[in-house]
Amino acid sequence: MARIVQKFGGTSVANTDRIKAVALRVKAEVDAGNEVAVTLSAMAGETNKLVEYVTTMSSLYDAREYDTVVSSGEQVTAGLLALALQDLGISARSWMGWQIPLRTDDVHGKARIEKIETGELEVRLSRGEVCVIAGFQGLGPDNRITTLGRGGTDTSAVALAAALKADRCDIYTDVDGVYTTDPRITPKAQKIEKITYEEMLEMASVGAKVLQTRSVELAMKEKVRVQVLSSYSDEPGTLVVDEDEVVEKELVSGIAYSRDEAKVTLVGVPDQPGIAAGIFGPLADSGINVDMIVQNISQDNKSTDMTFTLPKADLERAVATLESKHSHLEYKDLRFDENVAKVSVIGVGMRSHAGVAQRMFTTLAEKGINIQVISTSEIKVSVLIAEEYTELAVRALHTAYGLDGD
Amino acid sequence: MARIVQKFGGTSVANTDRIKAVALRVKAEVDAGNEVAVTLSAMAGETNKLVEYVTTMSSLYDAREYDTVVSSGEQVTAGLLALALQDLGISARSWMGWQIPLRTDDVHGKARIEKIETGELEVRLSRGEVCVIAGFQGLGPDNRITTLGRGGTDTSAVALAAALKADRCDIYTDVDGVYTTDPRITPKAQKIEKITYEEMLEMASVGAKVLQTRSVELAMKEKVRVQVLSSYSDEPGTLVVDEDEVVEKELVSGIAYSRDEAKVTLVGVPDQPGIAAGIFGPLADSGINVDMIVQNISQDNKSTDMTFTLPKADLERAVATLESKHSHLEYKDLRFDENVAKVSVIGVGMRSHAGVAQRMFTTLAEKGINIQVISTSEIKVSVLIAEEYTELAVRALHTAYGLDGD
Repeated sequence: MARIVQKFGGTSVANTDRIKAVALRVKAEVDAGNEVAVTLSAMAGETNKLVEYVTTMSSLYDAREYDTVVSSGEQVTAGLLALALQDLGISARSWMGWQIPLRTDDVHGKARIEKIETGELEVRLSRGEVCVIAGFQGLGPDNRITTLGRGGTDTSAVALAAALKADRCDIYTDVDGVYTTDPRITPKAQKIEKITYEEMLEMASVGAKVLQTRSVELAMKEKVRVQVLSSYSDEPGTLVVDEDEVVEKELVSGIAYSRDEAKVTLVGVPDQPGIAAGIFGPLADSGINVDMIVQNISQDNKSTDMTFTLPKADLERAVATLESKHSHLEYKDLRFDENVAKVSVIGVGMRSHAGVAQRMFTTLAEKGINIQVISTSEIKVSVLIAEEYTELAVRALHTAYGLDGD
Repeated sequence: MARIVQKFGGTSVANTDRIKAVALRVKAEVDAGNEVAVTLSAMAGETNKLVEYVTTMSSLYDAREYDTVVSSGEQVTAGLLALALQDLGISARSWMGWQIPLRTDDVHGKARIEKIETGELEVRLSRGEVCVIAGFQGLGPDNRITTLGRGGTDTSAVALAAALKADRCDIYTDVDGVYTTDPRITPKAQKIEKITYEEMLEMASVGAKVLQTRSVELAMKEKVRVQVLSSYSDEPGTLVVDEDEVVEKELVSGIAYSRDEAKVTLVGVPDQPGIAAGIFGPLADSGINVDMIVQNISQDNKSTDMTFTLPKADLERAVATLESKHSHLEYKDLRFDENVAKVSVIGVGMRSHAGVAQRMFTTLAEKGINIQVISTSEIKVSVLIAEEYTELAVRALHTAYGLDGD
């Protein structure tokens, strides 16, 4: 017997028929003798509709009222799943965040979970009752409903699994697991059986969004074993686990890419202490996250070029911010390029193996792909290239690191 | 300065534009220096949609989950109105039943309000903050959401007005008040300025549904002054008040009618003790409410005829029930008629005046309308007539009792 937390979101709870299908999945785990807690998102489209109501009412809206309105979507699906389970003869009841209570801080709209009082849930689970918990919501210190931010139901699921000391947290999605790369780019992409939390975080940060980043961080901190799997198939998915559990560590687990980046270069900035702070301080103040940064070696000991990347969506604001600081920064020219992509190879194995980055550079060079910027972390090497080479680069790297399937 | 509870339902909160219009009405009371609490129904159609979800999930549904799902509609409108008020610069917040708490008994789906803890609401009102309270819902002793039954927001409003000792409870509806009779039947119908609780109850019981019956009973018990008025006009509506407040008591306040009745006659039942119990006991057991009852004088001291009315919708079940008891009841024949209507004259003034019923009988006789059954209460005389005479009867009585306007 195991204790399992299941999470269903997106199209899995799109309508009443899909919710009935979810009930059958829950029943399968119950029939297998497991203790089951389930958490759900709102029906597809419902949250967007409620958010639109809120913004129609008030452009500068009170986040406490936003939470009251928007959390109602999960209230509905939780109640409906409890009914569907009862209709299958399974003992079940719904729980709202305030009923558990699932306590959060007071940051309405993107609250953090502080404590889940599991006493009553434990009693019910041990009696074989399914606990259906409204996702995305909690109770703030002001005795009002809080929400955890978009995609927050993943976080609800992982936090519940941690609090209930569950053996596994199954996240049902539209895809059947995490792949070595985007299967739309190469049919040779393979489903990964096990991946570490760190790798999963790096995959997410370069655009392979399967799990909400916050939920992976929480799973890593609490050592919750997470499975990503499809609500449309019966195949096992991908397990996201601690490094200790991955016995055969692949050198490289996956190739990720992102087309959401833009490159900015400030040409001829004075090469003097404080110049980086002068550039990146104002950008941070504008809420713009800068990613890769390269400072060229100064040619004349007087001026240098500074290149960095940031989200395409923030480019216009970034340029305006930098132009407003022109007199202070004294750069000669400001250039930017939206036609870039970031490609990354990710793997915990590279910690103990040299030559991973070298193989990447060689592979790209053989294909005639110019590398514009490089950045590395302990388990990731990323390069910025011209966007038109994205597919070519991903396919070549996928082959070069031995990831190709049949 | 007065303290006012406002209730908006039906089409008044149909969409975001209408909710903004509601906010302007609330603002007008605030600007006039009044303390205001508001309670709201769900958006038009929303409750029906949620009920359909529930019945799709499970035909024998758990009423606790029903309440969880269906109460979400009021959660949304309460949050949205608080936002709309804030957008107009008015201090406001939403309150769910469980937050107040508005405590009810444990009869999920049609709970009764037991106690409203008004401490925090009082503090907020005295500070000039508008309290926006989700209608139709409360908190049961099981710490779960309860609902008050269809139309329960009227009851929420009256109960809040009683608990908050409000000077008035304004119920905004699609009509601008209570009329001396249905204006669709005669354009001479006039809006009633003041009506007593008792009269309002009698009007409701014969089909003039403006207020939920339960809310009127509660208003009478708690002596809450209720005003029924239109959310589409600025005219004063009808005040529903205690008899003491109605100085000039009209002999008859209104003429009501109902086409929802059916007549049943059991011919030749044994005229012996216990026969009435033998007929009406099984009907009561089937949940059928019998209204008017007439037992003919026995012709032969052996058998008699029993005539009564019941809701048309229950006729088929009533006939089946009576037929199943045929061997016990020993009636000679069972006849029924759906083409009947009940017409009533209502007025507290008739308590102290004789001749009201006589005028009714005379008036109907003059128009050649045959009376099939008569029943009376302290403030009402009702007759059952052939349905085709309904309009004629109502118009003639409206004139006969001096109710005609210009």
